[in-house]
Amino acid sequence: MNASETLPQPDRLVKLRDELRQFAADRDWEQFHTPMNLAIALSVEASELLEHFQWLTPDQSQHLSAEKSSAIRLEMADVLLYLIRLADRLGIDLAASACDKIAINAKKYPVALSKGSSKKYTEL
Amino acid sequence: MNASETLPQPDRLVKLRDELRQFAADRDWEQFHTPMNLAIALSVEASELLEHFQWLTPDQSQHLSAEKSSAIRLEMADVLLYLIRLADRLGIDLAASACDKIAINAKKYPVALSKGSSKKYTEL
Amino acid sequence: MNASETLPQPDRLVKLRDELRQFAADRDWEQFHTPMNLAIALSVEASELLEHFQWLTPDQSQHLSAEKSSAIRLEMADVLLYLIRLADRLGIDLAASACDKIAINAKKYPVALSKGSSKKYTEL
Amino acid sequence: MNASETLPQPDRLVKLRDELRQFAADRDWEQFHTPMNLAIALSVEASELLEHFQWLTPDQSQHLSAEKSSAIRLEMADVLLYLIRLADRLGIDLAASACDKIAINAKKYPVALSKGSSKKYTEL
Repeated sequence: MNASETLPQPDRLVKLRDELRQFAADRDWEQFHTPMNLAIALSVEASELLEHFQWLTPDQSQHLSAEKSSAIRLEMADVLLYLIRLADRLGIDLAASACDKIAINAKKYPVALSKGSSKKYTEL
Repeated sequence: MNASETLPQPDRLVKLRDELRQFAADRDWEQFHTPMNLAIALSVEASELLEHFQWLTPDQSQHLSAEKSSAIRLEMADVLLYLIRLADRLGIDLAASACDKIAINAKKYPVALSKGSSKKYTEL
Repeated sequence: MNASETLPQPDRLVKLRDELRQFAADRDWEQFHTPMNLAIALSVEASELLEHFQWLTPDQSQHLSAEKSSAIRLEMADVLLYLIRLADRLGIDLAASACDKIAINAKKYPVALSKGSSKKYTEL
Repeated sequence: MNASETLPQPDRLVKLRDELRQFAADRDWEQFHTPMNLAIALSVEASELLEHFQWLTPDQSQHLSAEKSSAIRLEMADVLLYLIRLADRLGIDLAASACDKIAINAKKYPVALSKGSSKKYTEL
């Protein structure tokens, strides 16, 4: 048994947050990283991700080429990085907010009402 | 020293992935969760997040009301949840992809060239 | 033959531009209508439009309910209004730019190469 | 007085609609132009437009270089072209919908309440 198995692993979201904080500080980029600018960047990256699925059928989107998968993987990384950076600037714990949202969604979408349905909760 | 300190914590991204997988399975939603549909949903949520910053000045975006902050926190959760779900459907390890992307960005944006500049790497 | 048939009709895009200009002036909104803010608003509206198609199959998107069609019609109006307003702020003639873009697209996508294909011109 | 002054000019939106219809027919693209796919394409183009404003200050967005202005002009054309194409597929008269929306907005945002304010109508 080695140290890495017994010692608690640093949380990966926290680790990424710290790396991004350092990355921005090294480049004097805090001035550009206002919450507004980061929200714009995040939205632009989410659309670049979507662009990879443009003109595909939903079925084709389940059988992507290796090349397309690699490109999609890095676009998803971009979205995560801006999300982490924005959360850091706003003092938000991303994983905790996601837990809270799952609980909210569980109430909005009770299994009995939403099973097999893609309707919005307001229409259930 | 108690158990939670000595036992490795389950990774929060993995935990959220598993919860979302169960959430979808319980509701028979896998049929709707094609990568294409999830990419659309992710993009829509990223825009709902951006909408909260609409008409603000960058400076105002740094001083948000408690109410607005709460709403933004949950929109960010939505983005993360769809991102995790999409990664799961595509067999992608999100945190690993983010690490890879930081390494790529470090090469694209060397400190000496990019310090204090918001230029795209293609214009440096 | 009456006057409206012989007199040149005012162009509808020009008419909408003038109405929006007056609308903003009446409300003292020019201060908010920076090109950047209008580009954000346009992107947010385009996503609200997309949201109406979320979770539909491409086939379902061709058979919309009257209620959904009405909502979509007004979201499309929002996109057009911000587009016209942004063009006005930047001194751009929208219809002329669209003509130019069709000519560019005709060169990028020659009929012989692109017939029946959804590939991007860079992949033809 | 020459012919172009006395004959009614064809509406430019109608002309563009007809050209796009022909463009798609020539390339056998109707199969890809489902309303859903066009809504995705429109949203992606709106984000590409927004990307040109990324990292700018609102003030910088008012003083764009000639090169950036040209690029923005063509991105705006892309948005308009997809909007016209989507309207055609859905049987919507874009300019009429825009007129209707201006009337709705005039009621939502009475001058007395909204003058000098960027608040959403639900908060006025």
